[in-house]
Amino acid sequence: MSDLLLRNVRPMGGAPSDILIRAGRIAEIGPALSAPGLPVEDGGGAIAIPGLVEAHTHLDKTVMGMDWYENAVGADLRAMIDNERAARAALGLDPHRQSMRHALALIGAGTTHIRSHVDIDTDHGLDMLHGLLQTRAALAGQVDIEIVAFPQSGLLCRPGTVELLDAALREGADLVGGLDPCGIDRDPKGHLDAIFALADRHGKGIDIHLHEPGDLGAFSLDLILERTRALGMQGRVAVSHAFCLGMPDWPRTEAMLAALADQDVAILTTGAPSREVPQVKRLVAAGLRMGAGCDGVRDTWNPWNRPDMLDRARIIALRNNLRADADVDLALSVCTTGGAVVMRVQGYGLTPGCTADLTLLAGRTLAEAVVDGAPRVLVLKSGRVTARHGQSLTKAP
Amino acid sequence: MSDLLLRNVRPMGGAPSDILIRAGRIAEIGPALSAPGLPVEDGGGAIAIPGLVEAHTHLDKTVMGMDWYENAVGADLRAMIDNERAARAALGLDPHRQSMRHALALIGAGTTHIRSHVDIDTDHGLDMLHGLLQTRAALAGQVDIEIVAFPQSGLLCRPGTVELLDAALREGADLVGGLDPCGIDRDPKGHLDAIFALADRHGKGIDIHLHEPGDLGAFSLDLILERTRALGMQGRVAVSHAFCLGMPDWPRTEAMLAALADQDVAILTTGAPSREVPQVKRLVAAGLRMGAGCDGVRDTWNPWNRPDMLDRARIIALRNNLRADADVDLALSVCTTGGAVVMRVQGYGLTPGCTADLTLLAGRTLAEAVVDGAPRVLVLKSGRVTARHGQSLTKAP
Repeated sequence: MSDLLLRNVRPMGGAPSDILIRAGRIAEIGPALSAPGLPVEDGGGAIAIPGLVEAHTHLDKTVMGMDWYENAVGADLRAMIDNERAARAALGLDPHRQSMRHALALIGAGTTHIRSHVDIDTDHGLDMLHGLLQTRAALAGQVDIEIVAFPQSGLLCRPGTVELLDAALREGADLVGGLDPCGIDRDPKGHLDAIFALADRHGKGIDIHLHEPGDLGAFSLDLILERTRALGMQGRVAVSHAFCLGMPDWPRTEAMLAALADQDVAILTTGAPSREVPQVKRLVAAGLRMGAGCDGVRDTWNPWNRPDMLDRARIIALRNNLRADADVDLALSVCTTGGAVVMRVQGYGLTPGCTADLTLLAGRTLAEAVVDGAPRVLVLKSGRVTARHGQSLTKAP
Repeated sequence: MSDLLLRNVRPMGGAPSDILIRAGRIAEIGPALSAPGLPVEDGGGAIAIPGLVEAHTHLDKTVMGMDWYENAVGADLRAMIDNERAARAALGLDPHRQSMRHALALIGAGTTHIRSHVDIDTDHGLDMLHGLLQTRAALAGQVDIEIVAFPQSGLLCRPGTVELLDAALREGADLVGGLDPCGIDRDPKGHLDAIFALADRHGKGIDIHLHEPGDLGAFSLDLILERTRALGMQGRVAVSHAFCLGMPDWPRTEAMLAALADQDVAILTTGAPSREVPQVKRLVAAGLRMGAGCDGVRDTWNPWNRPDMLDRARIIALRNNLRADADVDLALSVCTTGGAVVMRVQGYGLTPGCTADLTLLAGRTLAEAVVDGAPRVLVLKSGRVTARHGQSLTKAP
C-alpha cells in the first residue's frame, strides 16, 4: 500500500493533473498538488486510465518463451482440446512458469486484474491449478488473479472430473467453469446441473464457455438462465463467448438479452473475428454487464492472440465496426470498467477513493492511444509501480 | 538496378543461404556464394520473403503525421463519403504529402508493390491523381504504384465525373474504378456501362469496390460478369471487398465463384472483421486470383488500419479462422504472391530470374514471423535497399 505523488498526467486524456496516492488509494486529483516527503513519479503528460482488466484468458496454456509451437491441428474444437491435453506433457508446459510469463506480460501491458480459467481434467488433476495458485501468490500486490476451475476436456464425459472441480474449489479456485453443455458433454442437463450444484455447495460464482452458435447456444443459454433463476444466483453467473447472441434472429436475441439482464448474467467477449459475436452496443443498451479478454495467448490452440488488452480493444472495435472516437472509448471501456464490473472489483476507477490501479499511455488523445496500442509508460497497482515502458519490474522466469 | 550479395538469409524460413543479385534480379540462391567486388549485406539469419504487396489501399486519404482526426461520423457509407469530401479542404489534406507518408510507411514495413485507388470527384477534379502521380515519380525504383481512378463520391449521381475519369486515364491512371453500382449510384446498369466503356476505350483494367452484401451484391456481381464476358475482358477485372461472396447461401456462392473463375475475375479482400467476407480457402480452392490490402489507413473513415501487410495477414487470418502454420503461410501468401498475381506483376518471386524485391523478417519460423508482425530488418527493391529496421531510407515529408 503505497504513498506516491504522480505528477503531470492527463486522466482519460483530459487536462494535465497530478494524482495524489495515499495508502494505495487515490486521495486527490488536481493541478499542482503538493505532498512534501512523498515519492514522486513524473508522468510526462501521459494519459492515465484505470488498469486494464483481462477478464477471459487461460494463463495455464501459453507457450510464451518456449520454442515455436508448430500448429498442425486447425480449428476443430474437440481436436484442439485433445491435442492440447496430449501436448502439455510432450512440450513440458510448466503451469507455474508459463502463467508467470503470461501474467507478467499482461502487467507490462498495463493490466491490473485478470480472470483466468485453469484446466481441470483427469489426466492432469489439479496440476494446473497448483501452478496458477503459485503464480497468484508470487504476483500478489502486482496483479489480482481470479481463478475459474475449468473442465476443458469435458465434465460428465470424463468421469472423475466433477470430483476434481470440487477439490479445486476447496483449494482456492474462485469460480466454477463450464463448457458447451451440448457440444462437448452431449448432456446439457447433466453438465449444467453438476456445475450449478458445485457453485451452490461452495457459494461460488460461475463462468461458462459457450461457443455453441445459433439455436443450439440459445438452448444452452435458456438452461443456464433457468438454473440461475431457480438457485437465486442472479449477478453471479457469467457466460464467455456467447456466440449465440450474435445470431441474426432479432426478436429472439432481444428476448435472450432481456432474460440475461433480468437475471443479471454477465457476458465476456473476445470479439472473435471469425464468429458471430455479441454486439457491444446492443449489450450495453440492454443493460448487461460486459467485459472482455484476449483468450489463450500463443498456445496450442491459436498463435494470434497477444497478452495486451489494448490489442483486444482493437479487435473488438474491428469486429463491432466501431470507428468514431466515442466508439473507440467504448471499446476501451469494455476492456477496463466492463471487466471490473463483471468481476465485481471493489474500488475500481479513476476518482478519489478508488484503488490506485493505473496505466499511463503515451499519446495525444485517448482514442489515438487506444488505436495505436500506445506505449505503456507506467503501470501502478495500489500505487506501487509494477511496470515501466511496457516491461514488468519483476522478471519473467 | 543493383548488384548485391545478400548473405545469410533463410528463404521462406528455410535453410541459411546467400542470395546473389545482379542487375536487380536474383541470379543465384545457395550456401556460401562468392561474388568478388560486389557490395555485401549481411542478413543475420533473417527470413527472406518476396516483397509484400498492398493491393487495395487509398494513398490519398490518410491523415498520418497530422493532428489526430476526431471521428464523429460512425460507419454509414454515404455519410463517410460526404464527410471526407468536405474534410479534405478543412484539414488541408495535401495528396502528394500524405501519399508520400503512407507509401514510405508501407516501404518501411516491407512493401514493394502498391495498388492505390485515388478519389476522382467534381469537387476536387484530378487533384488527388496529380498528387499521387508526383509520389509515384518520387518513389520510382523504391515501390511500384498502380493507380485506380476511383469515383468515390459516385459516378452518374455527380455529373461530370465520367469525363474526369476519362481525363484521369489519359493522364496516367492504370485502371478504372467503380463503387457499389446499386448502393451509391442507384443505377447499376448506367454505372457499370460507363465504367466498362471507359476501360474498353482506354484498353485498361477495372477494379470495382463492391460493399453491397448478399443478394444485392450478387446482382451487381452478375452485371459485372455479363460485361466482362461481353467485352472479352477476362483476366482484367477485379472486385474489391465482394462481401456478397461471404453470404451463407452455399450453392449460390458456389455458382458465383465458378462464374468468377470462368471469367478470371480477381478478388481483393481486407478481411473486414465486421462484415461477411470472401473466405480465402474457398476462393483459392475455386481457382480464383485473390490479393489483399489494408484499405485506407488512419483516415476520416476509420482509425484502425495500419500501413502494414503483416498486420493485414493477421486480420485476414483471424477473420478466416486460420490457425495452423500452413494456414498462417496461406494468409501471408495472399499478402505477397496473391496480390502480385492480381496485379500481374512480372518476375515476382523468390527464385533465380525473379526481380530482387525482398523483405527480411526477424524470427525463428515463417509462421512465427508472420504472427509476431516481425521486425522488418531490410527491404530491397530490385536489389536496392529501400528500408532498414522498419524505416524507409527516404524520409517522409
